[in-house]
Amino acid sequence: MDEKRPVIGITMGDPTGIGPEIAAKALSTKEVNELCKPLVVGDKGVMEQVLEIARINNLKVNSIREVEQAIFEYGTMNVFDLSNVDLTKLVHGKVSRMGGRAAFEAIQKVIELAMEGKVDATVTGPIHKEALNLAGYHYSGHTEIYAELTGTKNYAMMLIHGDFRVVHVTTHISLRKACDLIKKDRVLNTIKLAYKAMLSLGIKEPRIGVAALNPHAGEGGLFGDEEKEAIRPAVEEAKNEGISVEGPVPPDTVFAKARGGGYDVVVAMYHDQGHIPLKLLGFLWDRKKGEWSSIRGVNVTLGLPIIRTSVDHGVAFDKAGKGKANPESLIEAIKVAVQMAKNKKCRSGI
Amino acid sequence: MDEKRPVIGITMGDPTGIGPEIAAKALSTKEVNELCKPLVVGDKGVMEQVLEIARINNLKVNSIREVEQAIFEYGTMNVFDLSNVDLTKLVHGKVSRMGGRAAFEAIQKVIELAMEGKVDATVTGPIHKEALNLAGYHYSGHTEIYAELTGTKNYAMMLIHGDFRVVHVTTHISLRKACDLIKKDRVLNTIKLAYKAMLSLGIKEPRIGVAALNPHAGEGGLFGDEEKEAIRPAVEEAKNEGISVEGPVPPDTVFAKARGGGYDVVVAMYHDQGHIPLKLLGFLWDRKKGEWSSIRGVNVTLGLPIIRTSVDHGVAFDKAGKGKANPESLIEAIKVAVQMAKNKKCRSGI
Repeated sequence: MDEKRPVIGITMGDPTGIGPEIAAKALSTKEVNELCKPLVVGDKGVMEQVLEIARINNLKVNSIREVEQAIFEYGTMNVFDLSNVDLTKLVHGKVSRMGGRAAFEAIQKVIELAMEGKVDATVTGPIHKEALNLAGYHYSGHTEIYAELTGTKNYAMMLIHGDFRVVHVTTHISLRKACDLIKKDRVLNTIKLAYKAMLSLGIKEPRIGVAALNPHAGEGGLFGDEEKEAIRPAVEEAKNEGISVEGPVPPDTVFAKARGGGYDVVVAMYHDQGHIPLKLLGFLWDRKKGEWSSIRGVNVTLGLPIIRTSVDHGVAFDKAGKGKANPESLIEAIKVAVQMAKNKKCRSGI
Repeated sequence: MDEKRPVIGITMGDPTGIGPEIAAKALSTKEVNELCKPLVVGDKGVMEQVLEIARINNLKVNSIREVEQAIFEYGTMNVFDLSNVDLTKLVHGKVSRMGGRAAFEAIQKVIELAMEGKVDATVTGPIHKEALNLAGYHYSGHTEIYAELTGTKNYAMMLIHGDFRVVHVTTHISLRKACDLIKKDRVLNTIKLAYKAMLSLGIKEPRIGVAALNPHAGEGGLFGDEEKEAIRPAVEEAKNEGISVEGPVPPDTVFAKARGGGYDVVVAMYHDQGHIPLKLLGFLWDRKKGEWSSIRGVNVTLGLPIIRTSVDHGVAFDKAGKGKANPESLIEAIKVAVQMAKNKKCRSGI
């Protein structure tokens, strides 16, 4: 066993969703245990219950209150127990204040552990925004919680599926507002975050493609001027700083080129510009069953002082409590966290 | 040989580009000759020259001035000769007025032949907008020429790759202006054009997915109101008219679902929303060679009184005159034209 395995803190997510189940399933694989020293941050009772629901027989819960108490052996699931879920009141597939609070407290704790250096990276399970709100935590998602609790102002969302990676200049706002926010500084800033992210994944000389905002990259100003006013100047400045970057590239070819290995990462101007290609590659629809047969993709928050990766799906209430949830996205998220943690250690000389 | 083969008029495109070569290559295949009765509209000299350049030995040019003179036999390439290129002045890979004029006149002629019912469908080769302008024809592309010459006001662009199809509510304008144009009538109109297009491809009960404009389909109005104000009302009205349609669907999942067979066609709100997924599926980048190794995708203009399909790439000046151009997109375009022509005949009882 590689004793350089990083310690990965995984939040169980909202206990009314599939978060606890996919965490248990991921930890029941040899692969995850060989890659890292995993621990779940959440509620011991929930994690014990889910072993029964999903009929996972090869795991035993080790309830801990300090990371030092963890036993990193295959067959043991370390649960950093927050004792904040009343199992008699837990209803799967239903928004609840208790679920929202438990989800939030797990995030809070895993961030604390990472800031103290007790875990090398954090991976988050799915939460429900409405539940979070019911519990009195008014955030639009994980990213905002992480930003606030780590005091980070300058961050960006990266999505990864295999070697296909995209970092967003804007995310959860209307398309009109996204257009308003395409300014040189913001684009340059995102290029730099993307560049650092590639280094943190161990890519030595990252090649970055920057998407245009408008069709045909604006066709010389005929279809919009954001390329001329904001994107091209940002790309030029990044080049001057020694970053290998191309753009603005027409949005309809930059992703196909990245898929073929032409870029290590694409900087996308708005949410769907990056999400459409990512999900087209990572999500598979089963027409007969009328459901997704595979949902893959990892969400990474860039710019934080700690590492945070996440599943790229929600609580999946229709599948919660049934033992049939698919852990592949979480396993992918754990792998990316491990990769980033190892590079962080290398680079800081540990 | 199936004598119900439709007659397909194929323009050679700008003679300075790869259009003539891909037309000749397509017509040199048994497949195309078995599917249809093809004729090239262009210049006889150019088509003869390209047989030499590309070393195509199995074709003989039959120069015609009336469709009735065509000999639809494998081995014969019928060229509706417009005698409008001076070979001594033809330079491959260079924008020219002569090229622009020849390209335009071929389009004009093929439209005329289709309007007279002498060809069952038209397929266009790549043209160069600048050359067109030099020659005094001020259009932004084929679509606008077809619209004007057939007197069509209500049209839309469809892209097809295999079973993946997308129809656009807006195309060649800035993203900001595209947002302004998302109105109920325009969306409804595009849904109807998409519906008719599916019938014309022989799909009996088409299932249509309508993409939202904003991320998460606007998240209940939080990220924009076009979904509530324009897209949802259009979808409801289409449903009331008996069309099987869903939407507004979040943009980042609607294409993945369509790819898995969940929809026969997606109605996209703007150019790149539809073009990004189409080209991600149809274009393959060769990292070692630093070029596209495959460019597939068919462009169809909906709403015209005649059938028009097209390659989904440009004149490829870097490859022109070298004999190495890839005809696969043109062959795909011919196949779609044949499919539409056959269904048109069936439906009109011929």
